[in-house]
Amino acid sequence: MEIEEKIRDIIKKFSENELWIAVAESCSGGYISHMITNISGASKVFERCIVSYGNQAKIDLLKVDPKDIENYGAVSDEVARQMANNVRIMSKPCDIGIGITGIAGPTGGTPEKPVGLVYIGYSTIKETIVKKYNFNADRTTFKKLILEEIIEFLENYSF
Amino acid sequence: MEIEEKIRDIIKKFSENELWIAVAESCSGGYISHMITNISGASKVFERCIVSYGNQAKIDLLKVDPKDIENYGAVSDEVARQMANNVRIMSKPCDIGIGITGIAGPTGGTPEKPVGLVYIGYSTIKETIVKKYNFNADRTTFKKLILEEIIEFLENYSF
Repeated sequence: MEIEEKIRDIIKKFSENELWIAVAESCSGGYISHMITNISGASKVFERCIVSYGNQAKIDLLKVDPKDIENYGAVSDEVARQMANNVRIMSKPCDIGIGITGIAGPTGGTPEKPVGLVYIGYSTIKETIVKKYNFNADRTTFKKLILEEIIEFLENYSF
Repeated sequence: MEIEEKIRDIIKKFSENELWIAVAESCSGGYISHMITNISGASKVFERCIVSYGNQAKIDLLKVDPKDIENYGAVSDEVARQMANNVRIMSKPCDIGIGITGIAGPTGGTPEKPVGLVYIGYSTIKETIVKKYNFNADRTTFKKLILEEIIEFLENYSF
């Protein structure tokens, strides 16, 4: 199935169940929000996204703890967790918060945190989980691979 | 010239002059942010974007006056002006704030505010101007036409 069709199905399922999604994007740069809003009817499940590309945006807009950015880095389990959890809490209505932080490249990688490293946080009222991925690809493919993971999570989300 | 090349040139010009852009998107749904961040080096000129798809997001995240939304509607000169001006003031560093509100369709249009209506606000320390457009097209083309206007504004921005 095409990715657009999958997103359409998710929007239908979520709107029928009156569930809302909010997104906090760093390395994906607005792509997740863009792909959701390409579908007519998106406004029934999606009300906001924060693209916190820089660290100050993560602190100002998502209340990520600056000490955690300093201690663990902006690309970390801790920061993805706070992005996902905080965007969920701060948005009303919101049932699922998603937070994405990673290194798109081609520059910015280190031996410990190579280009392609991504943490995605998935937050609900029950729990916040963070998954780690490595998508070493060009910037466009990198964003698409992130979207596919989020789609899979939302498809499998049980009510 | 391809749109990606134009964005690359703008990022180069702006980063050389240490100028920063912040974006507040409604109907364009994150597409402007996505297209800017597709270019490596975007982080030198672009630090954040707020996708305020719903009215509450415009109020919560961009301090748009709820009375103006009530009196003029979310798709209006006044709201585009506040989105552009406020995202600029709230973001540091930021020299140019851009605010976009419109009706992507296919639903949501009225005789007074038809599908395709878009207001784009362009805000600098000198002034905030709002331009009105009518881009009656499918959702994807609608977003591209908005991007082209913003690109043209940024290309012609004089330092």
